[in-house]
Amino acid sequence: MRYYLVADFGGTQIRAASYPTEGFTALRQIKIPTRGKGTTFERLAEALHRAMPADSKPLALAVAAAGPTNPETGVFDPVNIPDMRNFPLRQALEAEFNLPVRIGNDANLAALGEWKFGAGQGYHDLIYLTISTGIGGGVIANNQLLVGAHGLAAELGHILLQEDGPLCGCGRRGCLEAFSSGTGIAAYVRQQLAQGCPSKLPADPPPTARDVARAACSGDDLGREALARAGKYLGLAITNFIATFNPQVIILGGSVTQSGDLLFAPMQAAIEANILAPAYLQDLQILPAALGDDVGLLGALALVTQ
Amino acid sequence: MRYYLVADFGGTQIRAASYPTEGFTALRQIKIPTRGKGTTFERLAEALHRAMPADSKPLALAVAAAGPTNPETGVFDPVNIPDMRNFPLRQALEAEFNLPVRIGNDANLAALGEWKFGAGQGYHDLIYLTISTGIGGGVIANNQLLVGAHGLAAELGHILLQEDGPLCGCGRRGCLEAFSSGTGIAAYVRQQLAQGCPSKLPADPPPTARDVARAACSGDDLGREALARAGKYLGLAITNFIATFNPQVIILGGSVTQSGDLLFAPMQAAIEANILAPAYLQDLQILPAALGDDVGLLGALALVTQ
Repeated sequence: MRYYLVADFGGTQIRAASYPTEGFTALRQIKIPTRGKGTTFERLAEALHRAMPADSKPLALAVAAAGPTNPETGVFDPVNIPDMRNFPLRQALEAEFNLPVRIGNDANLAALGEWKFGAGQGYHDLIYLTISTGIGGGVIANNQLLVGAHGLAAELGHILLQEDGPLCGCGRRGCLEAFSSGTGIAAYVRQQLAQGCPSKLPADPPPTARDVARAACSGDDLGREALARAGKYLGLAITNFIATFNPQVIILGGSVTQSGDLLFAPMQAAIEANILAPAYLQDLQILPAALGDDVGLLGALALVTQ
Repeated sequence: MRYYLVADFGGTQIRAASYPTEGFTALRQIKIPTRGKGTTFERLAEALHRAMPADSKPLALAVAAAGPTNPETGVFDPVNIPDMRNFPLRQALEAEFNLPVRIGNDANLAALGEWKFGAGQGYHDLIYLTISTGIGGGVIANNQLLVGAHGLAAELGHILLQEDGPLCGCGRRGCLEAFSSGTGIAAYVRQQLAQGCPSKLPADPPPTARDVARAACSGDDLGREALARAGKYLGLAITNFIATFNPQVIILGGSVTQSGDLLFAPMQAAIEANILAPAYLQDLQILPAALGDDVGLLGALALVTQ
């Protein structure tokens, strides 16, 4: 049995899987919480071991890791996993598994996965955005994954859109993520409720982005306005990405995109109102992500089979 | 004599030159105004013919053109040259010269020129910005020129920095160019003078960016503030470009950069205050452009010898 071993290594959960060299249906798939008994690295290694078919050794291993990941040095430096700051992840995995190992940032590899196996197949210039608790991005330019000097490229959620805008999870103000992520949407609604804005949403407990989406679906004005605002700033950021990359396709994934047109119609309006030139839009596709929860695993698979 | 023929084709002037296959000292170099007798294409062709050594035929021809330039279709579509809207430039040059022809956007090719012959030699991830009447950009990512689906990538002067910011030459508001170009600087000073802001600069005739730079050099407060503001917004835009591309080097050219630290110190301060993570800056170089007025010609030369 010839197969690859991969993991999607996040701050909340670790997913690991083995895939045959042909096709992309997992042979085995494992999911465990990131936090628990043992060090975080031991838990990652455990998930990977459990995802291996019993009788054979994989050809190679790849990990999509949630945080800054340097593909050259192999160092992973996540802000939210204290026992892995500045951690030589590739070297530790090579020592543990005695295999060729590749690592990459999860959003970058999600772009690679959608390009190779998902909604982006056949395109040579692609932007991928995942809009969830935070906002991550990945770019394929001329059939190559954009990684930059130290693997830190395509942090598209942290593009500054407004100098003194709302506070972002990164500690700065006015990033796209502060406007259009689930966290940004929930923070805006809480602030509006605190100011007495009428809504069916209760101020306490403070509504989550999911609560806001549900209220918007059932016609709540504040919920709709919050999604429209998120969509508008997403559209403004996308006009910047379009002028920067001139992509053929933009792929949108993540839980926030499940609100559909309540988010997408204002996004589209902002893109059309602000695009630098009509030529950018003439054959541009904006598509939903196709790989769902497996996007990180399939991104790692795309990396290891490159 | 084996040589290449190239042109830098702008809205004001056309430069053409021939370069030997080894080295990059021009054999002949010609400069004529873009507007004059004949059609604009005839004038470009004339400049190219005059740049050829009398006794031989070039190996190939490349043109760096000021405006949207599609390297696949060969179509050039400049806003400011009325007789060349949607013009099949590559095909017209192939017919005229019976040679292999390549075309590209001038700022993109300037990045390619600085990378191959100038300040960017040896780097694999590079951003080039020219800050002059307008602001143009070019990107080398993993040793490849970023062009995008239709040659429209890297329009870095038209990144939106402030939703209802100052009016830009492109008709939109709040682009980097509206803040930090020579045009943007002059517009800001005129507006401040009209509001009665004290300055040695006369309100009439309205000061140019060069007047502002001169006044700033001799200590005028408004002149200094105008350059500091331009530098600050340039720094904010650069933090976005850094998070997007994670470059090793940023190369800055164009007349506005001749103001030196009056522009660069506030730019650097804005970068350091707003960078997403210190890792982006650890070995980042910010360097002045090295090729001066020949950057367009040498960019075309870099393209034709690729």
